[in-house]
Amino acid sequence: MINRHQIAAAASRISSFVRHTPVIHANIGEHSPVWLKLELLQHAGSFKPRGAFNRLLSAELPPAGVIAASGGNHGAAVAYAARSLLVTAEIFVPDSTPAAKVARIASYGATVVQGGASYAEALTASRIRQGETGALEVHAYDHADVLAGQGTVGREFEQDAPDLTHILVATGGGGLIGGIAAWYAGSAQIISVEPERCPTLHDALNAGQPVPASVGGLAADSLGASQVGALMFPIAQRFVSQAVLVTDDSILAAQHMLWDRFRLITEPGGATALAALLSARFSPPPDARVGVVLCGANTDPAKLAAGK
Amino acid sequence: MINRHQIAAAASRISSFVRHTPVIHANIGEHSPVWLKLELLQHAGSFKPRGAFNRLLSAELPPAGVIAASGGNHGAAVAYAARSLLVTAEIFVPDSTPAAKVARIASYGATVVQGGASYAEALTASRIRQGETGALEVHAYDHADVLAGQGTVGREFEQDAPDLTHILVATGGGGLIGGIAAWYAGSAQIISVEPERCPTLHDALNAGQPVPASVGGLAADSLGASQVGALMFPIAQRFVSQAVLVTDDSILAAQHMLWDRFRLITEPGGATALAALLSARFSPPPDARVGVVLCGANTDPAKLAAGK
Repeated sequence: MINRHQIAAAASRISSFVRHTPVIHANIGEHSPVWLKLELLQHAGSFKPRGAFNRLLSAELPPAGVIAASGGNHGAAVAYAARSLLVTAEIFVPDSTPAAKVARIASYGATVVQGGASYAEALTASRIRQGETGALEVHAYDHADVLAGQGTVGREFEQDAPDLTHILVATGGGGLIGGIAAWYAGSAQIISVEPERCPTLHDALNAGQPVPASVGGLAADSLGASQVGALMFPIAQRFVSQAVLVTDDSILAAQHMLWDRFRLITEPGGATALAALLSARFSPPPDARVGVVLCGANTDPAKLAAGK
Repeated sequence: MINRHQIAAAASRISSFVRHTPVIHANIGEHSPVWLKLELLQHAGSFKPRGAFNRLLSAELPPAGVIAASGGNHGAAVAYAARSLLVTAEIFVPDSTPAAKVARIASYGATVVQGGASYAEALTASRIRQGETGALEVHAYDHADVLAGQGTVGREFEQDAPDLTHILVATGGGGLIGGIAAWYAGSAQIISVEPERCPTLHDALNAGQPVPASVGGLAADSLGASQVGALMFPIAQRFVSQAVLVTDDSILAAQHMLWDRFRLITEPGGATALAALLSARFSPPPDARVGVVLCGANTDPAKLAAGK
């Protein structure tokens, strides 16, 4: 299980490569005050460069460079990190990855290989290819260096908004929430939020182990890992207090609210954590100090209706 | 001429009504480090609520409520402030005000009266109407309370990014730059940035007094005041070191860059200050610490091309 020391070490290692993203304080409806961590302003449009840089900076990089499978955001992050560190990157994404994300990955100079019905199939293809090239695999979530990198979100959040009692985090493969939960280690309640159609951590906690879950709906390209990572699972069992599910409609409503009230563009996965609060799937106690991680913005802004 | 005391008093007065917006540090091209003040995350999508709240909270509010003329952002801010303070608002905007801004003003419950070719014509119409109703006029820039309110942007910027040497601010009627220049009062160089097609402060400084300037181009709805305010002009003469002009193309490039690299949506006027840096119309000395105010985001996100 990763710990605060590894996360602090990751923070030092990646600090000149990632943005320390801002936190803003907000009053949302009749809820307690809320602190929003604007991790969607991170390089490459999501939190993923934290883990990618920590992995690349901790490893010996082979001449064949790096290889990764991704729904899109991790691929963009690995491509971005690889370009920064002057190595080549090959990124495998499924057919469902949105055009905006494919274009983003390619814009950083990586080779994109698109195919397969799901992230899991892209991962299988990337591993076959990795066997041929000898490139360094950068797993999207199930690697200690990746988890520790994502945990730096928690470290910054605690630094900028001390004394939070509850922190809402969207879960896909579980790298982000695993890292954040390892950082707080019980000092704040960590709430997992997933779309009803991608209930990976919810199902895993119920089953007592990672199990395959359905993948579908609005946020599938960022939260559709189908199964949580083996490394994050014991962290979640110990330090994630609830695994909440939200509807796609509530995710869309959260996206619109963030544009309407904050002029922030989020992708569905980036607004999922907030959706739990807005839809009251998670209701904080009256004296709570709630933190919400807005974790990604890799979408086409045209998808948000005009004037909203 | 307003001073730091008035701005500090404004900050106390409005603090529970406006957002303390975040500052992020960025490396942009080969430039010196840059600090971006994300004032586009302010309520109602621009810096304008600062001045509007300071004006409303400093005045006795008549039963007829408040009235204002605006290119759109000020109107949205006055409507937002009026709703917060439970008074009615009537907002006059010219025909050129974008639909997104008209919808925004109406969404806060204000009455919108659209007509006239320019902000100046809307102002004339609003004053005739004010004579009939007795509502409180909330001028978009040429009022000491409004200037002091906008000056709180400078106060926060100095607090969060101390030791800036140069601060780039877009100028329309001059409320924002007047307030910020009054706050810094010579301790940092304040650089005015205007579109070539809306050169109000540039022309005024050359003429030695406010003079009518042309109004056109991309950012006219937020920077098309046609003439800078009488109250800000002596502040600008004393504390604005340069008045730079930029092309519409460079504004568009800045908007795209802000989405591409920061996932920030800006309206043209909101990206204008940065355009001066990107287009090298303003070139900071090598050891400069440059601040840039991103001041508005009231646009239709669909206007930014997909995938950028």
